[in-house]
Amino acid sequence: MKKQHVSNAVIRRLPRYYRYLDDLHLKGSVRISSGALGEKMGITASQIRQDLSCFGEFGQQGYGYNVDELRNEIGHILGIDERHRIIVVGVGNLGRALIHNFHFNDAGFLLEAAFDVAPALVGGEVEGVPVLDVAELERFVPAHQPHVAVLTVPQQVAQQTADRLIALGIPGIWNFTNVELSSRGKDVKFEDVHFADSLLTLSYRITRQ
Amino acid sequence: MKKQHVSNAVIRRLPRYYRYLDDLHLKGSVRISSGALGEKMGITASQIRQDLSCFGEFGQQGYGYNVDELRNEIGHILGIDERHRIIVVGVGNLGRALIHNFHFNDAGFLLEAAFDVAPALVGGEVEGVPVLDVAELERFVPAHQPHVAVLTVPQQVAQQTADRLIALGIPGIWNFTNVELSSRGKDVKFEDVHFADSLLTLSYRITRQ
Repeated sequence: MKKQHVSNAVIRRLPRYYRYLDDLHLKGSVRISSGALGEKMGITASQIRQDLSCFGEFGQQGYGYNVDELRNEIGHILGIDERHRIIVVGVGNLGRALIHNFHFNDAGFLLEAAFDVAPALVGGEVEGVPVLDVAELERFVPAHQPHVAVLTVPQQVAQQTADRLIALGIPGIWNFTNVELSSRGKDVKFEDVHFADSLLTLSYRITRQ
Repeated sequence: MKKQHVSNAVIRRLPRYYRYLDDLHLKGSVRISSGALGEKMGITASQIRQDLSCFGEFGQQGYGYNVDELRNEIGHILGIDERHRIIVVGVGNLGRALIHNFHFNDAGFLLEAAFDVAPALVGGEVEGVPVLDVAELERFVPAHQPHVAVLTVPQQVAQQTADRLIALGIPGIWNFTNVELSSRGKDVKFEDVHFADSLLTLSYRITRQ
């Protein structure tokens, strides 16, 4: 893989490429042109060629892309084949919804454990995932070295919980708390899920378009 | 407001502008330069000026932007002051999590009702929001004309539920089902929430950066 700088916008499009290619793969498509893929995704063929050129040479003039090959390459670039380990911290409605409905496996993640403070939950399971006491993080994380923590705790304890996870060496935090988290200088990757941004985009469209 | 074509990328950045300006507003900031705002948001000052030029003239050479004014203008562009009405269809874990935790009000939406098929839920309330039988959609929607339906039903009934809402004239669907919905030719705006795209972006970052 080339080592050039990859812009944020390109990184954000990679999962979409993967999603569309995976869909084509499931439908049995063998090849697709950059034009046809662009039409599906609502972007131009030249945008696709430019995006992919950040990572190497893909596709063939006059043939297009081999769907499986490109899907696997992009999956590899995204780290889907790394079998990252993930934990959920906060088993309220949202944490529970993610454990029940989100396909961690399809994204290449192995969901190892969930954590909460509620005595009614601790010691139990959600969809086969053990729920441990948050106090166990200091034992569990060094022993299992999860790559990502899903942060679904209440806002008031968001930063302090993040601080604990960061001190324990977690490389990535998938942040659903709507709190802008600080890493206090440590190299941690945050991915914030902002539901409001999504709804406001829809608000714009029904208001102005 | 000017009526020129506004690109998808600009539309997607508007809620982020609003979020950052709202934060500055809450912190008591009175004005900000495009350079300082860009630095906060990780984009260039010229990008900001270009984005905002789609909607008119904002800010003043040598002064920058008045935080409150720009926040209110962007809020208006996004339709936050329209007091849109919204309903939640599907009161499982995810629907319940949104009703409990998402600040519909801050996004300018009035949450009027929720719908489910489960007899244990129908007739009750979640956070003061009445839960009605899904069978009541055909009575409720024409009477209350909600602008947006949050779709948090199981995948197997996603398209058929969307079809009913579309037939009833709902202008926007905030789609959490991970099913690519079709509007069958009607002019409906879909906003899909793809959790996997977000997690895969994080996966890329912890793998490659």
